[in-house]
Formats: sequence, C-alpha cells, structure tokens
Amino acid sequence: MAAPLRLGLAGLGTVGIGVVQIVQKHAAMLAARAGREIVITAVSARDQTRNRAADLSGYAWEADPVALAQRDDVDVFIEVMGGHDGPAKAATEAAIAAGKDVVTANKALLAHHGHALALSAEAAGRVIRFEAAVAGGIPVIKALTEGLAANRMNRVMGVMNGTCNYILTRMEDAGLPYAQVFEEARQLGYLEADPNLDVGGIDAGHKLALLAAIAFGCQVSFDAVELEGIGAISIDDIRHAADMDYRIKLLGVARMTGRGLEQRMTPCLVPMGSPLGQLSGGTNMVVLEGDSVGQIVLRGAGAGMGPTASAVMGDVMDIARGVRVPVFGIAAADLAVPVAAAVAAASAWYVRMTLIDKPGALAKVAAALGEAGVSIDRMRQYGHSDAQARVLIVTHKATRDDVNDALARLAATAVVLGAPVALRIEEV
Amino acid sequence: MAAPLRLGLAGLGTVGIGVVQIVQKHAAMLAARAGREIVITAVSARDQTRNRAADLSGYAWEADPVALAQRDDVDVFIEVMGGHDGPAKAATEAAIAAGKDVVTANKALLAHHGHALALSAEAAGRVIRFEAAVAGGIPVIKALTEGLAANRMNRVMGVMNGTCNYILTRMEDAGLPYAQVFEEARQLGYLEADPNLDVGGIDAGHKLALLAAIAFGCQVSFDAVELEGIGAISIDDIRHAADMDYRIKLLGVARMTGRGLEQRMTPCLVPMGSPLGQLSGGTNMVVLEGDSVGQIVLRGAGAGMGPTASAVMGDVMDIARGVRVPVFGIAAADLAVPVAAAVAAASAWYVRMTLIDKPGALAKVAAALGEAGVSIDRMRQYGHSDAQARVLIVTHKATRDDVNDALARLAATAVVLGAPVALRIEEV
Repeated sequence: MAAPLRLGLAGLGTVGIGVVQIVQKHAAMLAARAGREIVITAVSARDQTRNRAADLSGYAWEADPVALAQRDDVDVFIEVMGGHDGPAKAATEAAIAAGKDVVTANKALLAHHGHALALSAEAAGRVIRFEAAVAGGIPVIKALTEGLAANRMNRVMGVMNGTCNYILTRMEDAGLPYAQVFEEARQLGYLEADPNLDVGGIDAGHKLALLAAIAFGCQVSFDAVELEGIGAISIDDIRHAADMDYRIKLLGVARMTGRGLEQRMTPCLVPMGSPLGQLSGGTNMVVLEGDSVGQIVLRGAGAGMGPTASAVMGDVMDIARGVRVPVFGIAAADLAVPVAAAVAAASAWYVRMTLIDKPGALAKVAAALGEAGVSIDRMRQYGHSDAQARVLIVTHKATRDDVNDALARLAATAVVLGAPVALRIEEV
Repeated sequence: MAAPLRLGLAGLGTVGIGVVQIVQKHAAMLAARAGREIVITAVSARDQTRNRAADLSGYAWEADPVALAQRDDVDVFIEVMGGHDGPAKAATEAAIAAGKDVVTANKALLAHHGHALALSAEAAGRVIRFEAAVAGGIPVIKALTEGLAANRMNRVMGVMNGTCNYILTRMEDAGLPYAQVFEEARQLGYLEADPNLDVGGIDAGHKLALLAAIAFGCQVSFDAVELEGIGAISIDDIRHAADMDYRIKLLGVARMTGRGLEQRMTPCLVPMGSPLGQLSGGTNMVVLEGDSVGQIVLRGAGAGMGPTASAVMGDVMDIARGVRVPVFGIAAADLAVPVAAAVAAASAWYVRMTLIDKPGALAKVAAALGEAGVSIDRMRQYGHSDAQARVLIVTHKATRDDVNDALARLAATAVVLGAPVALRIEEV
C-alpha cells in the first residue's frame, strides 16, 4: 500500500469539522477505496480554545494557515476558511508554492482568483480541486469536467443558492411576502453575514462562473455574470407565474453564443412540470446540456456539514488515487479569454404591470410593446382594485434591450401605475 | 503533449458509430481536454460491407475482435458489441491479457463475469471502465465510485430501463392495457430481441448488480438480484396507485442490511411527488444515498447513440488523462463475497384484489391479513361490477414472506376472485 496521504486542514467551522468526522469515522473504508491511508496531520483555525464536535488532539495546531500550508508533513492543503482575499488566498498561494495539492470549498476565492491560482498550480504540477465550491454535495464539477468531457456543452443551468430557493418556496407555500420570509431566513441562520451574497445572487453567481469556465474552456470571469437578486419578486409574481404553469427560480444560465459567452444569475420563470420547476426548499439542482449526452440533471443538498464535507473528501480521495485533471478541465494556460456576450440571447418574458382601468389603457400597452419590437404571446387581465387592473403578458422571444425599451415606453404611457416588472422565461 | 491514445473499437452498431462520430467531430476539443490526441486505429464488426453513418476508411479493419484486442497499435479496447458470452467475453479477456485498458458498454458481460474480469485486469495493472453500461449517458458510475467515495452508502435506487418506464408511462397517459403498449413498443423498436431482458427486469437487474457492487464493496452478484417484471401490472393498478398519490415504476433497490445485501428489481409504488415519481417516458434516474451527502438524484437519457457514446468517451477521456480507479471502487481482490439477504427488508405494500360483494367478505379479508401478521394502514373499496368489488389495501410495514402468507390466506377465503396482487411501496 502506498504511503498515507497527509492532509492539512485550514478552517474548523462546520465544513472543517465535517471533514474531520469523515476521516475519523471512515478511516478503514477510505483506505480500502483509495489504496492508502488518509490522515490529518495538522489543523488551523482562528480560535484554538473553542469547543468543537471532534477530537483534534492528535493533530498539530497552526495558528497561521500559511504556516499550515507550508508544513513538510502536509501533502494536501484543504481550505475551508472562506473569504476571497486575506488568509484564504495567502494560504492557498503558499500551499501551491510549497508544492501541495489544494482542495477548497471557496467559490468566492476561485471566482475572483481561480485563473491565476490554476496557472500557478499547474506550473508547479499541482492540482486545485473544488467540488465543494459548487452545489455542495452534488458531484457536478466531476460530472462536467470528467464524465461529460467528450461533449461540447450547449448550456449549463443551476439553482445553486439554497437560501434563495427556500425563500421563494416558502413565499409560495405560505403566501408570505418577501420581507417577512427574508426575516425568517435570517433568524433561522440561513443567510450569510452579508445577505446580499445570497439574495443578490452573488454566491450563486460565483458558482455559475466556475461552471461556465469548465463548460466553455474559458478563464473564469465572474465580473461578466449578469446578476439580479430576488428582492423584487412579489408574492403576486409567484402566484401569477403559477397560474400560467411556471415557477420563479433564481436560475443561473451559461451558454456560448455566436456573440460570446453569456452568463447570468437572475430570477427566471421555468415550467412547473420541469425538474427545475419541481425543485423546492433548500435543495440544489444543476442541469448540464451536451451535444451528445443531451440533458443531465443533478439534484442534491447544496450546503450543510455532511454534503459539503462529502465533496471535499471526494476530492481528497481523487488525489489519493492519483487522479489529476486540469483545474478547469483544460490546461489553464490554454483557457480562452472569454468575450462576454454584450446582449443575452432573446427569450420569452413575463411582464407584470398595474394599469389604470380606463378605456384604451390596454391598447396603449399593446402599442408600447409593439413600438419596442416586443410581440405578445399571451395576455391576462385580473381585477385588482376598483380603478386598477393587473395585466400579465408573456411575450414572444425578445432581447433584454427590447424589453427594457418596452418597459420605458410602458412607464411613459401614463396608464401604468408604478414600475412594470419583467422576468425572463427560460426554456428547459 | 503526450503520445496519442489509440483506440480499437469492437462493434459498429449505433453506439460504435456514435463513438466514431465524437472522435472525428471533436478531435481538437478532446485533445485540449485530455492533453493528448485521441485516435481510432482499428475497428471490428461482423459485416464490413454494411453502409454506416461514418467514414471508417482511415481505420484498420479486423474481422475478429480478439485480433483487434491484441493489436500493437491499440492502447484501449472499446467493447460495444454486446452479449455476455462469446466474442465480447473472449475479446475482453484477450485485451486484458495483451495489456490493454478496456472500456465497455456491456452490462450483461460485467454482471456475469465482472469480478473475474476485474481480478485479471487489476493483476495486469489495467482498468476496465463501464460508465455506458449503467443508465446510458448519466455519469453515475463516476459519481458513485469517485464523487461519493467518502460516503458509506445507505441505499442505491434506479429506474434504469427506459423501455419499461416508457411502457408504464404510456399505459397511464393513454389508458391502454399492457399488452397493447408492449406491442407498440415492439413495433417502435424499443424492445430487445428477447423482450424479457427489458420487461422481465433482467437488463435493469444487470445494472443494479453493478451499482450494488460498487456501493457496498462486494463482488458483483447478479444471481442474487430479486427480479420481477412489469407484465403483471394492469392499467387498473396504475390508476389505483395514482388515486393514492403513487406511481408504479420498475425500480431497482440495493442496500446493505444487518441480514446481508438486498438487491431487487421489481415494480414498486413511489410517491408521485418524488423525483422518481415524476419521471416519465424513457428517461433514467438513479438515486444515491450516502451517510454524509444525503440523497443525490441523477437524471438523463439511459440509452441512444449520443448518450451512450458520451459515456464511452468519458471513460476514454479518463484513461487518456491517466485517471485509474479500481473497477469496482476497491481492489477486486479485496471485494467481499456478498451474503444475500434471505429476506428483503419490510416495507409497506399495495395489495389489490377483487372481492365477491357479499356480507362479511371484507371481514374475511381483514382476518386473513391479520393472521399473516400484516396490518392495514389504509383500505379503499371501489364498485367494480354487480357482484364484485375492487379492494385496495396499503399495509403497514411487512416482509415479503408475511405478504406472501397473506396472499395465500386471501386466496383461501373463497371471497377473493382471481389472484390478488401485491406491490412493494418504496419510501423515497
């Protein structure tokens, strides 16, 4: 049997302790599967005195994760501290410089610095693996990078922020407004310290940028992701969408178009009967579409101690078995510089507005849309209050620019009350 | 760049031609991802003169797949001929003996001879990969063997025969009896030459046995799979199940119990709202449950040229990249000899019978179940014809033996017409 694989674990929060528990509980099973023992030699966290749900007495302690990353008795540096700059970045760089392989759960770090880190890791003959950074326990990085490696990918989609999906599901099930469910989620501890990472789509956008880099062979380019959070979704929108057999999801979509790479993380309507439409609660789902394989759907827990630690340890097992694949699927030096699509592809749209209920109002709406080049597929009008009507429109395919033009023209009609809302409908 | 990886392709049916098309169409993409060129050097099939949807003129032709497997200019032997004995087995053995890695789509071959082949391959330092053998394009072997390698698996489930799922879905949607839909499927070419491979659950049972071997670290033991086909499912059963919010699926379930390894491929009722219950048509689904990761659901095309060729080529890409993992996840020599669970775990059951509609009949039914130790959770009675009533029972948890005992006692009551039907309800 080969020599034990020695892990240095930086970060002893939920995920880090989950990793310790797997290594301790399943030592024999891991050794049988990897063909060698997997051992933790050293750990690091900010506070050594904190009480943790694992016996760490057998491991060396380093106050500084950089020192941990440089230890001679560490083969693999596991980074589960979080944060896209500061200690996580410094320690990851130190690990690569010291000739260690890296396993990380840090989507923000890789979304911002993934290309530079991959270049230096591959120049040093090391790997960086990050299954835990995207969709928690779902082995989607592996499926995309390895299992579907013979496919030209057409589109990658994902519901990859469990908190947002929880909020939208809870709004629908309980009929509660966004602000109230947001507050519930905060009290349940579902939200990041900066909630905009969740509800603003940033966290999920990080994940999408990583998937897009692999799927389309490009340098990761998080700055090019079109981001729109869920804060503007009303319970009315959720109900109207359901009336038309759609559900609203914070959906990431990446595809390579003739005009460049399109990446967006925005609220979208998806058919209620589709796998994405049926997804409820905190569960994640990723849809991978390849030219040979067709559509593959992966579903599972996107967060939590067990699922995330499972993904970290899956990467560790690969390294133990000698599996070495380029960080983003092709050598980092060969990754293309992506050209961001200036305009996302056309799609159908859901447009919701409140109309002053007087003769000719609807004609003005139709005219405004027509002038913007947006044609109407379906329209519904609901009684709303005495002098107002709620109007819903599903458009034929239109670009975001055309829809924005239509929204501006609608606002100028003087028959639309407040700001109309437009949400993309994604065909799945 | 490393030397090209040279493929010898045995079998030029749908899947073989799909492999040729990917290699030819995506040569540059595959080379960039694998770090080396992927080339086909030689092919083999029964009939060289047949017109095929690919240009094969650049490849050497071998009439004998054994000769193909032994060629010096072949690094990887791809077996997509099918058949669990005869040429496929001989050629695979020859390839291993000649020091080649093997990629196969042949579930029957591996279900019957997988352990012996894995032993000889690993003794020779070679790999056998078989992603295409289970659930077509879904990268489930990879997910289970590699991605979830740090999990103790609790249960593996799958709907893995698209033809059966097509038949059951079509019966439900069109309200047609089994025999008629079976005939439709035959005329559409959906059925194997021996239809019992499909509707008898044998093909899906092969796949389940392979998943179980990996999940539970055992030698593959197809003979221990409890098999029951879908031929006895009536349109009434499908409707009654739907009335109680269930769907009927030919469902494979494997789990390690205190009494040994349980493997079954039988028609089961699953909750309509679950991912398995929502699956329709020819699509496949596999559910993997691990102690850390929880439940992972994978969905995609289980057959067809593109998806199967995608899986074959995913394995080829792994070999090209130097990924080498034991055939069944741990060294074949270390795989346990599975002890088959003599009695499958208890579960709830759906029991359907036709009753002579006379006073006291239902009491006799209840008494018969009680004597067998089977208790009733829910019961429904439907008018059926003048003198008959249809009775449905959902039981509390009971073993197959207890249910069989109950069925025998029911038959002896003289109030039950014909044979009562019992189908397991799987909690998912």
